[in-house]
Amino acid sequence: MLEDKNQKRTSLSDLGEFGLIEHLTKHFAVNQSSTLKSIGDDAAVLDFGNKKAVVSTDLLIEGVHFDLSYMPLKHLGYKAVVANVSDICAMNATPTQITVSIAVSNRFPLEALEELFEGITLASKLYNVDVIGGDTTSSQKGLIISITAIGEANLEDITYRNGANANDLLVVTGDVGAAYMGLQVLEREKQVFQVNPNNQPDLENYTYLIERQLKPEARKDIKELLEKLEVKPTSMIDISDGLSSEILHLCKQSGVGCNLYEEKIPVDPQLIDVCEEFNIDITTIALSGGEDYELLFTIKMEDFDKIKANPNLTVIGHMTEEKEGMHLITRATTKIPLKARGWNALQNEA
Amino acid sequence: MLEDKNQKRTSLSDLGEFGLIEHLTKHFAVNQSSTLKSIGDDAAVLDFGNKKAVVSTDLLIEGVHFDLSYMPLKHLGYKAVVANVSDICAMNATPTQITVSIAVSNRFPLEALEELFEGITLASKLYNVDVIGGDTTSSQKGLIISITAIGEANLEDITYRNGANANDLLVVTGDVGAAYMGLQVLEREKQVFQVNPNNQPDLENYTYLIERQLKPEARKDIKELLEKLEVKPTSMIDISDGLSSEILHLCKQSGVGCNLYEEKIPVDPQLIDVCEEFNIDITTIALSGGEDYELLFTIKMEDFDKIKANPNLTVIGHMTEEKEGMHLITRATTKIPLKARGWNALQNEA
Repeated sequence: MLEDKNQKRTSLSDLGEFGLIEHLTKHFAVNQSSTLKSIGDDAAVLDFGNKKAVVSTDLLIEGVHFDLSYMPLKHLGYKAVVANVSDICAMNATPTQITVSIAVSNRFPLEALEELFEGITLASKLYNVDVIGGDTTSSQKGLIISITAIGEANLEDITYRNGANANDLLVVTGDVGAAYMGLQVLEREKQVFQVNPNNQPDLENYTYLIERQLKPEARKDIKELLEKLEVKPTSMIDISDGLSSEILHLCKQSGVGCNLYEEKIPVDPQLIDVCEEFNIDITTIALSGGEDYELLFTIKMEDFDKIKANPNLTVIGHMTEEKEGMHLITRATTKIPLKARGWNALQNEA
Repeated sequence: MLEDKNQKRTSLSDLGEFGLIEHLTKHFAVNQSSTLKSIGDDAAVLDFGNKKAVVSTDLLIEGVHFDLSYMPLKHLGYKAVVANVSDICAMNATPTQITVSIAVSNRFPLEALEELFEGITLASKLYNVDVIGGDTTSSQKGLIISITAIGEANLEDITYRNGANANDLLVVTGDVGAAYMGLQVLEREKQVFQVNPNNQPDLENYTYLIERQLKPEARKDIKELLEKLEVKPTSMIDISDGLSSEILHLCKQSGVGCNLYEEKIPVDPQLIDVCEEFNIDITTIALSGGEDYELLFTIKMEDFDKIKANPNLTVIGHMTEEKEGMHLITRATTKIPLKARGWNALQNEA
């Protein structure tokens, strides 16, 4: 007997909109004390008491922001939450709630949406954010995800992009560039698969890069770490478009220049190997590859001693007077202008 | 010389994402004292002090929720804001901020997005909500709009769907059904236009219906009105899907039944005329036509005297014990079960 591969496909139209919402959202628990009312009314109700609320939103479109041929739906759901949680972390705030709206064409069976929501649920548990609302509707083409994240913070802790001063140190968490190269590996495998669908990919040498692309993490830990180190960042942003692009945002909004040192940029050893294999310049990837969801921030120079021993934090440069401009100091100590090239721009060149 | 019809088309790719966001959002002013930080950072920052925050979100897809062949972009932007503001009003809260995310395919020139944002700006000024964030990206097909609205209220004023009790009176604001018939008129004109593009439509007899469809208003006035009348609603919802569907939501979530009186349902005289012209039963339209954005709520019976003289409010029935079920009492005093048929269901039947 032939295997019925479609045995677990439930049509969305069988459920109806309200049935679908109930089915998908019934596992969302309320854990935040600030969530007074969650899903099920015209709006959710939040109580921030003396804290301030922080709000961020993102719209993700199939074929533009993700490719389902190598991005499993569960990972996509997880990553969509992470990207928004990361924006709240980049305010030096604590993420507390999210809303999730989904539009799908009728080619998606219920089981596909369940997988997506499994990833959303997993991330919301790990980051301790309540899913408090959303909207589920049909699209004419593909999958569309819109997430709004809400967080809380004391006013004095909230860190903007515009607070950097000349002589502040520029600090990055973790390492950069890996998520972009993970995407390159996956795209190469997709092309190999299209030529020979029986080919089994061997991805053992690329596990870190692929994980950074498919299952990135937001640096919710950094706010706590900086508090423990007694360091107050002066400006902060997360790395979604690429390191150089984010540095330029901080510089422009703060009215300062900067010197970034090529040799200081933290990269994973696996990234070095794979850049060699692909014959790509590693600094280009580190500067322009996006989706790392690391945090980039500035601190006062006198705080250097407090952070220098921490393996999570790397000083990669310092801010200067605005008139000095924004520069990359290469390994050969040449000073070249720093250009804003996000990973989208990079893709257009490829 | 031939007229150059394309002289004002600016390609979105000329601007780039950041340029586009800056261009479209530069006119958004901050008017709410609770808006501490608006567009321009990773997230907006809000201060609700002793008030509670209320959050709602909506995702609108071209071809599913709107048809650009008869919905001018400016009206679409206006209506998208209204639909979300209405959800906040339905919590008996005051809308204060919105985020607006847009995805467009490259067939849209800059001028089209400007029109859309003109409508968004107009509505945000009229309803006094600050546009505090959003996302602008490309889509593979059509226009996608995602809006999240935030409001504030004292905890004791917030009204849920689940607070109705047996014997409470069921009250609706304004009149219902007109927005749906406006859509029918516009769809008929579209078909006429497709047959004969030179035909000039005469829409004089349909102005109210078309305005209800293209430029609906949210009932932000009702919270204030009820306060002035010293009436505290026990449950509340807005009419986006259709009167019968919304009544059933209140009943189910409150654990009550209801009797709705056909003769009491408020309809505009123009709706009566046009239903006759289209040979459609007016009660079907009043019950199932959506997008009116009126408010539906329940009050204690003893509050009847306080509201009975108000032209904005109509008592259309009363709640009963749950076991009595949900019924429509017809003009011929027949009692028939009330069915949930939103306007989408209606369209599928047509």
